[in-house]
Amino acid sequence: MILSALLTSVGINLGLCLLFFTLYSILKKQPINAKVYAPRAVAAKEESQQSEGFNFDRLLPTAGWVRRAWQPSEDELLSVTNLDAVVFMRIFIFSLRVFGFASIIGVFVLLPINFLGNQLTVDFSDFASKSLDSFSISNVDDGSNWLWVHFCAAYIFTGVVCYLLYAEFSYISSKRIAHFYSSKPQPHQFTILVRGIPVSSGSNYSESVDKFFTEYYSSTYLSHSMVRRTGKLQRLTSDVEKVYRTLARLKSENNTQQRFKRDGICGRKVDVLDYYGKKLEDLEDTVRVEQSSLAGKEVPAAFVSFKTRLSAAMALHIQQGTNPTEWITESAPEPQDVHWPFFSSSFIKRWLSKLVVVVAVAALTILFLIPVVFVQGLANLDQLETWFPFLTSILNLTVVSEVITGYLPSLILQLFLSFVPPIMIVLSSMEGYISFSQIEKGACSKMLWFTVWNIFFANVLSGTALYQVSILFEPTEIPGLLADGVPAQASFFISYVVTSGWTSVSSELFRMVPLIFSIIKRLFSGKDSDEFEVPSISYHKVIPKVLFFGVLGITYFLMAPLILPFLLVYCCLGYLIYRNQLLNVYAPKYETGGRFWPIVHNSTIFSLVLMHIIAIGLFGLKEIPLAAGLTIPLPLLTLLFNEYCRKRFLPIFKSFPVECLAKKDKEDHSDPSMDAFYDKLSTAYEDPVLMPIRRRRSTDGHSSPLLPADV
Amino acid sequence: MILSALLTSVGINLGLCLLFFTLYSILKKQPINAKVYAPRAVAAKEESQQSEGFNFDRLLPTAGWVRRAWQPSEDELLSVTNLDAVVFMRIFIFSLRVFGFASIIGVFVLLPINFLGNQLTVDFSDFASKSLDSFSISNVDDGSNWLWVHFCAAYIFTGVVCYLLYAEFSYISSKRIAHFYSSKPQPHQFTILVRGIPVSSGSNYSESVDKFFTEYYSSTYLSHSMVRRTGKLQRLTSDVEKVYRTLARLKSENNTQQRFKRDGICGRKVDVLDYYGKKLEDLEDTVRVEQSSLAGKEVPAAFVSFKTRLSAAMALHIQQGTNPTEWITESAPEPQDVHWPFFSSSFIKRWLSKLVVVVAVAALTILFLIPVVFVQGLANLDQLETWFPFLTSILNLTVVSEVITGYLPSLILQLFLSFVPPIMIVLSSMEGYISFSQIEKGACSKMLWFTVWNIFFANVLSGTALYQVSILFEPTEIPGLLADGVPAQASFFISYVVTSGWTSVSSELFRMVPLIFSIIKRLFSGKDSDEFEVPSISYHKVIPKVLFFGVLGITYFLMAPLILPFLLVYCCLGYLIYRNQLLNVYAPKYETGGRFWPIVHNSTIFSLVLMHIIAIGLFGLKEIPLAAGLTIPLPLLTLLFNEYCRKRFLPIFKSFPVECLAKKDKEDHSDPSMDAFYDKLSTAYEDPVLMPIRRRRSTDGHSSPLLPADV
Repeated sequence: MILSALLTSVGINLGLCLLFFTLYSILKKQPINAKVYAPRAVAAKEESQQSEGFNFDRLLPTAGWVRRAWQPSEDELLSVTNLDAVVFMRIFIFSLRVFGFASIIGVFVLLPINFLGNQLTVDFSDFASKSLDSFSISNVDDGSNWLWVHFCAAYIFTGVVCYLLYAEFSYISSKRIAHFYSSKPQPHQFTILVRGIPVSSGSNYSESVDKFFTEYYSSTYLSHSMVRRTGKLQRLTSDVEKVYRTLARLKSENNTQQRFKRDGICGRKVDVLDYYGKKLEDLEDTVRVEQSSLAGKEVPAAFVSFKTRLSAAMALHIQQGTNPTEWITESAPEPQDVHWPFFSSSFIKRWLSKLVVVVAVAALTILFLIPVVFVQGLANLDQLETWFPFLTSILNLTVVSEVITGYLPSLILQLFLSFVPPIMIVLSSMEGYISFSQIEKGACSKMLWFTVWNIFFANVLSGTALYQVSILFEPTEIPGLLADGVPAQASFFISYVVTSGWTSVSSELFRMVPLIFSIIKRLFSGKDSDEFEVPSISYHKVIPKVLFFGVLGITYFLMAPLILPFLLVYCCLGYLIYRNQLLNVYAPKYETGGRFWPIVHNSTIFSLVLMHIIAIGLFGLKEIPLAAGLTIPLPLLTLLFNEYCRKRFLPIFKSFPVECLAKKDKEDHSDPSMDAFYDKLSTAYEDPVLMPIRRRRSTDGHSSPLLPADV
Repeated sequence: MILSALLTSVGINLGLCLLFFTLYSILKKQPINAKVYAPRAVAAKEESQQSEGFNFDRLLPTAGWVRRAWQPSEDELLSVTNLDAVVFMRIFIFSLRVFGFASIIGVFVLLPINFLGNQLTVDFSDFASKSLDSFSISNVDDGSNWLWVHFCAAYIFTGVVCYLLYAEFSYISSKRIAHFYSSKPQPHQFTILVRGIPVSSGSNYSESVDKFFTEYYSSTYLSHSMVRRTGKLQRLTSDVEKVYRTLARLKSENNTQQRFKRDGICGRKVDVLDYYGKKLEDLEDTVRVEQSSLAGKEVPAAFVSFKTRLSAAMALHIQQGTNPTEWITESAPEPQDVHWPFFSSSFIKRWLSKLVVVVAVAALTILFLIPVVFVQGLANLDQLETWFPFLTSILNLTVVSEVITGYLPSLILQLFLSFVPPIMIVLSSMEGYISFSQIEKGACSKMLWFTVWNIFFANVLSGTALYQVSILFEPTEIPGLLADGVPAQASFFISYVVTSGWTSVSSELFRMVPLIFSIIKRLFSGKDSDEFEVPSISYHKVIPKVLFFGVLGITYFLMAPLILPFLLVYCCLGYLIYRNQLLNVYAPKYETGGRFWPIVHNSTIFSLVLMHIIAIGLFGLKEIPLAAGLTIPLPLLTLLFNEYCRKRFLPIFKSFPVECLAKKDKEDHSDPSMDAFYDKLSTAYEDPVLMPIRRRRSTDGHSSPLLPADV
């Protein structure tokens, strides 16, 4: 890729970003779009405060949202959203620091050295048509002593990144503990999930749980809720909800024309309202029958609540029964976070399904290479001309060829990639996780490795799929192969950052898809439907994307520092836009207290080691074997550092220590509201579909017909 | 190696074994050897029951000891020794079962098939000079369908071994729990070790421990004992002990000739008794001063005792402080098992020393190849003749050449190997283990991998040391390389089993070294010294040896089933002899409750997978790629099985579950002796060298001058 192609791509994408920003700042001011751009405010019933009258200002693009997104401090953000959101924003802050430092070294030290090399002899008189490769390490002469600067840069950069990683891990740990201290008593702090309940003849699971915990935890055991098989009931209640909604819509429409429909092909006309009313009652009866019959459909799993946090934690950590595959304890998620139809199967089934999921993820990752290879072909103009000879004349136009090489490949990749997150969610839920947060976390890791393999390695190795797998069996070949392939793809990834990174983050601000949906809805139903849910951010889609740019930045820091300024722009955009979205759009669905952070840490360590391996290969190729040899300790030291961090910080992300738990328990002693809390606790983990049907037919129709008694 | 050489070797070793047995059965009957052959009985003061008078029967070899070793049931063995000894004997029972089954298939099915093949064309008319290779799989024709019998045998054998592994793991787990139920209250069940105690300014470690546990475990915390730096004191007390012993010996000798010695070169003569008496008093004073000054030399580690087993276990499993590198808990070993001068350094130091030990073990394992390669040279007659041309005439004698090829190599290996266990013990103790049992367990694993690498792989790969390490980086080459090398070494390993296995186990019975020591002592001191210790079995030496034969048997089952009968003989001998030794010679030093078993399990799984990998390579070499392909699932299934076993049984070997602990605690409630036990508990974990010097100058001189007040 030549410089002018890159500039074209940058131009197009800058234009797109500006377009999105302008449209956003205009559309956001239209009250009609409030549900798209400020659903949190709508949900909090603040939309009425906005003036409904037409105002000329509303058509002018302004940058006020930038200030509003920038201004709130981290504590304010925490109070408005939750710790997960704050930790998510820390990814951008961390990346900004890393790439800020990397840019200084990369652009002012490494880039000039690369550019002044003479290895790539093809010399263009024109600066604009200079190949981007002349900015990469490939341009440094073989055996040149300048490469020792790169060597030093690798050591210094690793040291700085490790320091930043440590500081960030430590900061988030302390945030996590502070957040725990400041939290009110919450059901999940007092509860554990017990699976694999054994049952003696003549008693059921519930009795078994009661007997066990009364015997061994007599002083602290409070109550338990059995988990039941509710798949059928879940389908029924969602039917009820659908019918209820239709009924509500029909009632609000008051449209007599549509009120009658034919019963069957040649039946008589019936009142639709009556019809749906009857149907709803029938369904509700079925639900009640099903609910009462479900009492017996217990599965060997239960949520067990204790009187104190400490006793719940103690029951969580210690092996309960003599058979370690029975009475398996797990910390309970928040009640609203429980994935009710979770896999409540036996120990061995869950274990095997985990294995199956691992195999499935590996298979998906490998099979996905096929479209990627196709995309690779598209990025290559000559290939395209061979395939579609009739396009030759169009492809020969400079603009078209630049668009194709600079923009199309990553766009198609994006399209394919958008199918993957839902698949990963399904696979994660098959693993037997009990909460949405765990499922999302599992999907997040899977997505990250998927992205790294399918975008990074597939592009770098760019051979047949089979060949790329077989490389795993020849570990000594890897550094050389990567050192050969990675710098060659530098220009592709620079354009990837610009196209995929910048565009995706600004379209996140613009919320294209929800906007279109909202417009269609309005056109279709005549007026804006009153039912709407505040969306929650899909961490499993966003985090891997952000982290992948981190992988790119750290890996290419040494080889093609030209990528760094573009990444810095991406991080700035991301910081502002996601802050804005978290403040205005997304409501937290659950709170894990920043449990996503270890994924970020691991990904950064992985990038560093990858960078070191490539550096070893590069110094080898560039004929300074001494530097290659001296780089070998670097990945080892980095892995040691990682191991230390895991020991030092990871336990805090798994559970809270005695010190914290005991302190919080002591606070509760003097709290008069604890009795009320204990009452709530005993029913907190009832499956919502098992709650008695209780309609709150409020006029605004906001609430759904089935609501748990105490939420 | 030809058949007659093997037979010579078998003959020599059978002769040696018989000689050892005969000598043993005669020497054992001499009361003078009681301390060598029945120290347990001596310690129990039963030796007086034996008739002291001369009896002609005492010179006749008898096999009564075989009956006496065979007869006791497992429960009787458990009551006389401990669970570790019983579990150790289970290794032989397990091996007998595995090799019994393997022998049936190997000798009656695989051996005839191998022998009837025609691949090795060199045909000897004489059966005795037939190469042993004609009994191995190498003799089966390439592409022969008979190889499918081997394929089926691999699957069936793996299935049977896995079943036996499961049954054995399950049996030992239940034994372990039953043993816990039947145990009396013991200090280590109520105690945990806490390391990394943080200290606030103005208080010491002891106060910090007291404050922490009084605050967070107010209802169950009992007491704590700080660990102190006692290296200097330990040296002093051992000096006191030496002087005391000399004094006791001098007193008992009453030999006036030796009572005076010169003080300096030209000094006056002094009474030796007075001299040593004065020296002893001086030393004891120094010890007392040192003891009192040590109160301040606390290290950040303490044994913390609780009122119940359950509360100790709970404190053990849960993270204590917000910083996971502080307040690290570990289960306490038995008081007599504590390795007092243990590494009481900081979290990070211990972690780094563990890493250093790993590197040191790897280095030792690799450097050890040098003598092994030398031994390889010795095993080769031609090489020997080249090196020492003057020996040619001797080496050409049939007997000499057969002795050299059949016996010498493994004898030299044995010699070198005997230096390794002490080194491994030192390395394990550097890892920061707190008890002898843990150190021995660590050394046991290290020894096992050391043995497997240096005896098995070094012989099989038999190239340069460097080449053998580099193979690790080419995983796809491994099966073929092993399939090439392993069958070729079959005859070496058969002779290894006969020479090293049979001889080592019968010399274990004969106790050559202790016998010689005892004779020398008697000759030197005129009469048998009264001070003696009942020896304890060195599991870290014995278990890896036994397990290595297991590795050989399982690996060679498919390729050279001729090895199996020899292994069966080894196991039978081992079973009888070690049972005899455990009953008569070795006293248990500590009780881990069978924690060694997982090493046995892992080693067996490793052997199975190794066997599968070699089988894959072999089927490839033998030109039936379909069988090679169909064997690939076998190691994967085996590893899955192993993973399941780890989940199912391993937790029981780490700690006891709530169910067991709560039941035992309940029993104690009604036990009136618990108050006395609690009193004992609070001082159980005092460092013995810190106990006040208290002499029990009994006339028999058995006791040492320094004894803890309550042991």
